[in-house]
Amino acid sequence: MCLIVQKFGGSSVKDAACIARVAGIIAKTYQAGNDVLVVLSAQGDTTDELIEKAHGVCSCVPVREMDMLISTGEQVSVALCAMALAGLGVPAVSLTGYQAGVMTDGVFGNARIQTINTARILSELAQRKVVLVTGFQGMSSGGDITTLGRGGSDTSAVALAAALGAQECQIYTDVDGVYTADPRIVPDAQKLDAVAMSEMLELASQGAQVLHDRSVELAQKHDVELRVLSSIEEAEGTHIGKNAVIEKRSVTGITRSMALTRFRLCTRSSERSFMRRIIRLAASCGARLDAVWQYECAEDVQRICLTVPTADAPVLAQELADHAEEFSLDDVSTDEDIATVSVVGAGVMSDAFVLYEAMEALAAEDIAVQGIETGALRIALLVSKGDAERAMCAIHARLVER
Amino acid sequence: MCLIVQKFGGSSVKDAACIARVAGIIAKTYQAGNDVLVVLSAQGDTTDELIEKAHGVCSCVPVREMDMLISTGEQVSVALCAMALAGLGVPAVSLTGYQAGVMTDGVFGNARIQTINTARILSELAQRKVVLVTGFQGMSSGGDITTLGRGGSDTSAVALAAALGAQECQIYTDVDGVYTADPRIVPDAQKLDAVAMSEMLELASQGAQVLHDRSVELAQKHDVELRVLSSIEEAEGTHIGKNAVIEKRSVTGITRSMALTRFRLCTRSSERSFMRRIIRLAASCGARLDAVWQYECAEDVQRICLTVPTADAPVLAQELADHAEEFSLDDVSTDEDIATVSVVGAGVMSDAFVLYEAMEALAAEDIAVQGIETGALRIALLVSKGDAERAMCAIHARLVER
Repeated sequence: MCLIVQKFGGSSVKDAACIARVAGIIAKTYQAGNDVLVVLSAQGDTTDELIEKAHGVCSCVPVREMDMLISTGEQVSVALCAMALAGLGVPAVSLTGYQAGVMTDGVFGNARIQTINTARILSELAQRKVVLVTGFQGMSSGGDITTLGRGGSDTSAVALAAALGAQECQIYTDVDGVYTADPRIVPDAQKLDAVAMSEMLELASQGAQVLHDRSVELAQKHDVELRVLSSIEEAEGTHIGKNAVIEKRSVTGITRSMALTRFRLCTRSSERSFMRRIIRLAASCGARLDAVWQYECAEDVQRICLTVPTADAPVLAQELADHAEEFSLDDVSTDEDIATVSVVGAGVMSDAFVLYEAMEALAAEDIAVQGIETGALRIALLVSKGDAERAMCAIHARLVER
Repeated sequence: MCLIVQKFGGSSVKDAACIARVAGIIAKTYQAGNDVLVVLSAQGDTTDELIEKAHGVCSCVPVREMDMLISTGEQVSVALCAMALAGLGVPAVSLTGYQAGVMTDGVFGNARIQTINTARILSELAQRKVVLVTGFQGMSSGGDITTLGRGGSDTSAVALAAALGAQECQIYTDVDGVYTADPRIVPDAQKLDAVAMSEMLELASQGAQVLHDRSVELAQKHDVELRVLSSIEEAEGTHIGKNAVIEKRSVTGITRSMALTRFRLCTRSSERSFMRRIIRLAASCGARLDAVWQYECAEDVQRICLTVPTADAPVLAQELADHAEEFSLDDVSTDEDIATVSVVGAGVMSDAFVLYEAMEALAAEDIAVQGIETGALRIALLVSKGDAERAMCAIHARLVER
């Protein structure tokens, strides 16, 4: 069996005309002899409209009921798409997360998939039906509907592709692939034919919105071959996988991440476990650390700088205030005027010129670099928010377009 | 445990203000110490809007997918209402038909409830939660979502009340009870405090829209006490049940049924099984017979007149055409200009004056009676559509207001 998983986002199914186009893509894949499993998001702004409705009836919405409510959006999409396929003469069946066997933990609003019981899906595929599954949702062992949080439909698609051993998991979006930078910011950005999974993971976690990092992580873990394609124009898209050709290039892409808050901490303690304990504190309150630097470690003072998503900043600030005495914190300051511009690629660290060229590019534009973070596949440069877009363009021009 | 089942229709939950009012009614019942199970319909015109969406993507919609689609409407309602209750400090949990254990047969669009597995509901009630269940739907043994057809939410409520042994099943509507006639047609119509179940069954099946006849049938079968109440103004409503006081009156109400088509058949056959075979033919093609009269049965000709809901007329007409030769049909004519005006009450047949007075009332208004049908609890008079409202008023004035 040659099984293709196809995922279409909310803008791809937002109205009848879009659904007709999506049904056409699915039908073509099916008629080429493939088994096809499709994962759909809710139509257009449906999810946001439902959330608004919820806030209209209750100021403090119970998370279980929110999941019950918003999970209807994807159900509408899969039913409509199954109808459109029937209209094209393609046998199809729509399934909710539960019907598709997607079992999750019980964390409403941010559930994680635990197992997928594929019996029903396999039985429908064996009857040569296209199977349409609601993205973004599953059912807990307690029998409650759960949603997977933002990026959940990508995650659903990859998890189903992994569970079914699909040949490829195709993510359809409104762009035609993965670019060396966001074309809305860098007009000369180039489309990539292939990206290694590990590079994609860096790109996704650093603000490239084409794929959610959680789904790329899952794809890497389960060796799922991904392809990012346009639902509007027919093209090869970008192949992301273990076997994706890594071309002779150091730099794969330039991304930026804006919604960050930087904390600066100072302690009089000489306790060597200080940094480790701060990291544990952040983990225990659910604040996701983006980066941590210890930039001073003297006899009587230690200074740490860390960045977290701005959404997680308040809870971390509270935790630090609660533990100020325990940690002998002298001073805690926060700063939201920062952004990271990341240079991602398999060779960015081994090619010594990359960091040099990037720094040169920023200097030529008179952009101050407030910090540098390096990893095997990524160099991140900390700049002011207002400089981020110019920094992307300058680095892209020098490192990608050269 | 004193359990009350409350059902609210689509107009009662159509927006945030309506949901707040409904939540208030539920909270009051709960806070009086009762266990409460609530059945909700989809908001306002949601179901019709979803059906329209379906027809926008496919000209011939598969029934399974239509059920998958429209079942989302009730899910939105129960989730929103659970949120509103939470806002009032009342613990509540919403359940889909499947989660509530409502198992049906596999007839999409018109399923019948087969069993209700009450385990989840009982467990939630035991935790003193208000349980909100999506009306109108269940799940087939094959694991597919099914809907119960028009009037399905009333049916869901009564079936759940029966399965749980509820003390009372309260049907909230936009009127404050059952009337002796539709007040929009007969301004002097009177509200009834109590109606016997059998009378209600006649009223419901003859066009009183306050309750769906299918749900009344189910209530009668399982001895469920019903109460029809207003969701807008607080009042006692109308009690319908085995123990409802049957007052000293012959006539309980006057109804009309407009969407009927009359067939007139003539056969040259003297075959005595003719009428029986025609009834079997109607049953086999799903046409619901309202009434059948054999008004001539001579040596060489038999004439039959029958009425069916206009929706079922085309399929019956086709069946009759297909079997014209087999049945030696000479002539088949159809006529849509008919309506039945029904006089319902426990005493309508035993009180010989009722039919006499009704006929007198129509004669005084110069309304021609084209047929009479009688049953234990009902006298139905066949008149032209244009005469139906005047006939209701005339009969009501003479038999109810006297």
